[in-house]
Amino acid sequence: MKKNIQLIKIHPEDNVKIVVNTDGIKQGTRLEDGIIIKENIPQGHKVALRDFKKGDKIIRYANVIAYAAEDITQGAWINENNVRLPESPKLENLEFGTNIKKYEPLEGYTFEGYKNEDGSVGVKNLLAIFTCVQCVEGVINKAIEKVKNNILRNYPNVDGIVPINHNYGCGVAINSPDAKIPIQTLKNLSQNPNFGDLLVLSLGCEKLEANKLFKNEDKKTIILQKESGFEEMQDTIISAIKSSLKKLNRRKRKEFPLSELVVGVQCGGSDSFSGITANPAVGYAVDLLVQAGASVIFSEVSEVRDGLNLIAPRIKDKKVAKKLKSEIAWYDDYLNSGDVDRDANPTPGNKKGGLVNIVEKSLGSIQKSGTLEIVDVLGPGEKLNNRGLNFGATPASDFICGTLQLAAGINLQVFTTGRGTPYGLAAAPVIKVSSRSELKEKWKDLIDINAGRIINGEVTIEEVGKEIFNYVIEVASGEKITWADKWKIENRLCLFNPAPVT
Amino acid sequence: MKKNIQLIKIHPEDNVKIVVNTDGIKQGTRLEDGIIIKENIPQGHKVALRDFKKGDKIIRYANVIAYAAEDITQGAWINENNVRLPESPKLENLEFGTNIKKYEPLEGYTFEGYKNEDGSVGVKNLLAIFTCVQCVEGVINKAIEKVKNNILRNYPNVDGIVPINHNYGCGVAINSPDAKIPIQTLKNLSQNPNFGDLLVLSLGCEKLEANKLFKNEDKKTIILQKESGFEEMQDTIISAIKSSLKKLNRRKRKEFPLSELVVGVQCGGSDSFSGITANPAVGYAVDLLVQAGASVIFSEVSEVRDGLNLIAPRIKDKKVAKKLKSEIAWYDDYLNSGDVDRDANPTPGNKKGGLVNIVEKSLGSIQKSGTLEIVDVLGPGEKLNNRGLNFGATPASDFICGTLQLAAGINLQVFTTGRGTPYGLAAAPVIKVSSRSELKEKWKDLIDINAGRIINGEVTIEEVGKEIFNYVIEVASGEKITWADKWKIENRLCLFNPAPVT
Ligand SMILES: [Ca+2]
Ligand SMILES: [Ca+2]
Ligand SMILES: [Ca+2]
Ligand SMILES: [Ca+2]
Ligand SMILES: [Ca+2]
Repeated sequence: MKKNIQLIKIHPEDNVKIVVNTDGIKQGTRLEDGIIIKENIPQGHKVALRDFKKGDKIIRYANVIAYAAEDITQGAWINENNVRLPESPKLENLEFGTNIKKYEPLEGYTFEGYKNEDGSVGVKNLLAIFTCVQCVEGVINKAIEKVKNNILRNYPNVDGIVPINHNYGCGVAINSPDAKIPIQTLKNLSQNPNFGDLLVLSLGCEKLEANKLFKNEDKKTIILQKESGFEEMQDTIISAIKSSLKKLNRRKRKEFPLSELVVGVQCGGSDSFSGITANPAVGYAVDLLVQAGASVIFSEVSEVRDGLNLIAPRIKDKKVAKKLKSEIAWYDDYLNSGDVDRDANPTPGNKKGGLVNIVEKSLGSIQKSGTLEIVDVLGPGEKLNNRGLNFGATPASDFICGTLQLAAGINLQVFTTGRGTPYGLAAAPVIKVSSRSELKEKWKDLIDINAGRIINGEVTIEEVGKEIFNYVIEVASGEKITWADKWKIENRLCLFNPAPVT
Repeated sequence: MKKNIQLIKIHPEDNVKIVVNTDGIKQGTRLEDGIIIKENIPQGHKVALRDFKKGDKIIRYANVIAYAAEDITQGAWINENNVRLPESPKLENLEFGTNIKKYEPLEGYTFEGYKNEDGSVGVKNLLAIFTCVQCVEGVINKAIEKVKNNILRNYPNVDGIVPINHNYGCGVAINSPDAKIPIQTLKNLSQNPNFGDLLVLSLGCEKLEANKLFKNEDKKTIILQKESGFEEMQDTIISAIKSSLKKLNRRKRKEFPLSELVVGVQCGGSDSFSGITANPAVGYAVDLLVQAGASVIFSEVSEVRDGLNLIAPRIKDKKVAKKLKSEIAWYDDYLNSGDVDRDANPTPGNKKGGLVNIVEKSLGSIQKSGTLEIVDVLGPGEKLNNRGLNFGATPASDFICGTLQLAAGINLQVFTTGRGTPYGLAAAPVIKVSSRSELKEKWKDLIDINAGRIINGEVTIEEVGKEIFNYVIEVASGEKITWADKWKIENRLCLFNPAPVT
């Protein structure tokens, strides 16, 4: 691709092109192939490459993304107002296992991490403070504030203190079938490998008792109802924190094979370029990571649902196919029970960025998963069990997806964004990849890698993919720090709880 | 009542007594009336005053709280293992308006508050920072941290900065019918009278755009996607905060009639004494507040559901009766849709404290509502519309109930607890009333008023009720500070969102 190019087409079969120019393309512009632009069309939006009759297929990524809702002239703007949403792929029609790629392992890649007692390896040296119920949050936050302001600096090898605050634990339907999800999430979250030590805070009368979450009873559990008032609570908590910090401060990084590394990928604030630049570059990095032995989890059911016909052929075996169908069917039911329009996922920002509907968004989103075999499907809150590429069946919400990927055991996350979001996690580094150069130019101190350079031909998808791959290893080894970590941007975790509150 | 008394009976019709002694009552103890205790029975638990045949009614508060699940001997321990749960009152059988009490207004009570531009009156002088979506939380929290550590002290008349962080705004089914609840909650929350000024933080591409929440477009809205990176975001936010603080710092308290005051009541971590001491004392205070012109909201559907036969007769008119039935029916459906056992509400702590089931818990809980006419019923997230005693149909979860009461417009909350919870709100003072003296002795620096003194006859329900009434006015006027405010215990708000996430 060259500079000044104004439109790009992703696949030869596509009958639309995407406007690249920041200011869009003006009515009356004559394209190289003679097409005349019929109206002003903004950046990221689609131009009709031919005349469409009402009902004709609109094709991008070599897939039907929509049907023309009216006659559309060549050179006109294709947008959410003149298209109709296709049906989702039917679960019973999916073809599984027909596109399993063979690949050579990439040998010799390692990272420097922290070995935990349970054998897992962290990329950070964190103390997690785990709450059993929201009642204790006000008290624990005060103690952490004091430690961060006055004490933490004495333990320079400790990366931080992470409160696992949540709204679960009491006032919830703990025996409802769907309550399994938040409970297993909390259980597995407490085992995230980036937590070198864990302190447990209980009120003492909550439904979600500490022993329902933690196996070894010797976990340091502080029960507030046993303490004599607020000041004693503060003393008890701070002294427990200090003794953990002392222990953590002695840890050192050691070299491990990439098979000990778990990477999550997700997107947020996507635009029409996400599927051309950032997501395919991440997909390329995902292929490299998996070839080098690492595990990767991609997620976001509502952004995969409409591209399942592309995912199913990469599913390893019948058992995994069955798991995929059951997780997707559960999610279909969940959305139906709330009368959710499936096309409610693209946000106003997505649409402004040129995505006409959930199908177009999905086809862009699943580029993040690369091209290799999918060895397992995880239900929401389940822990990684099989090394390699996994699909984690989570909501697309950045915070719920982030929380569930942490529960699955990710060490770090690669996050693509087009519109821009300043997202960060306290528990894991987040590497932010922008889909457009404009975003990187504006958010110099928030975006780690700019995949927008792919559009104008400065670099290739493969080059950015390689860059992301190397960046992941450097961040995992503590050699590079993400912008989100530099500023300590810590978005709060959010549990997925489909069960009622009481 | 005298010292050393070991058992109390609430109503002459009751066929059980409650053990008062901290250490419980020993097997073999002979009571005044000749009953011999058959086994060790802990504090707060029930003694059978007569022989029960399987199926016999167990009566407390002059109401059936359970049926004997087996034969129970006089002097035996009645607990969750030997009783059966009664049916909930049927909505179609409720009798409305048959118990409306006449009362004389209490004249001349006033408080000192802050008048807002919209005419409402606050009891605190707070700056609220309202987020449209969770994406901005990491950034706004950093800015608030800086302001709290370095700047706030220059504005001594300002009570604090309250971030309204929440998990809503994007990645949610914003057009689902049930999404009405979180959206109207956020809308009304932003109008809480304790907020003297409001700053709005938007990402710029979220579904829940600022104009869907705020009427006047001149609200100071900062859109992060328009800022050039993290450091500029911090500068912009901090400078907007400073200009608000300057304005707020000039405000002074003025005298207002009690009709400008809105008080919420709720309970959390209840025990068997809650219904004998703290809740009736709060109920007495609620009667005084309403007689003096204030508005009061009581809540917690799942703790009112089984006492509806006592609530319905106090409902003002047919319109309010219809609203009550519709809110309760919605909640019944909501719990049924998640296969919730209605008896799942009492927590392990409640049960340890002597409450056998949700019926007994409910009958104790509704004592908080006093005895007067109920002038309106509010759906979750609705704003107070009619002065006087209101029922707010919220979940019982302390944080969701607290959030919904703040959205309804409460200035402060009276919170009863038996097991003990260190709950506090950043947006409103929380006055904590303990049901047992042991809790106040242990948590001297957390409990504001000890209603446990009622048990041993030190004080009467009326005396503690009067004390709470006066305390409410003093806290509202800034003359007294609650323990939760002294320590700045700020439990996070929690939206009630029955709609799916996407
Ligand atoms: Ca996404
Ligand atoms: Ca996402
Ligand atoms: Ca981080
Ligand atoms: Ca309660
Ligand atoms: Ca409660």
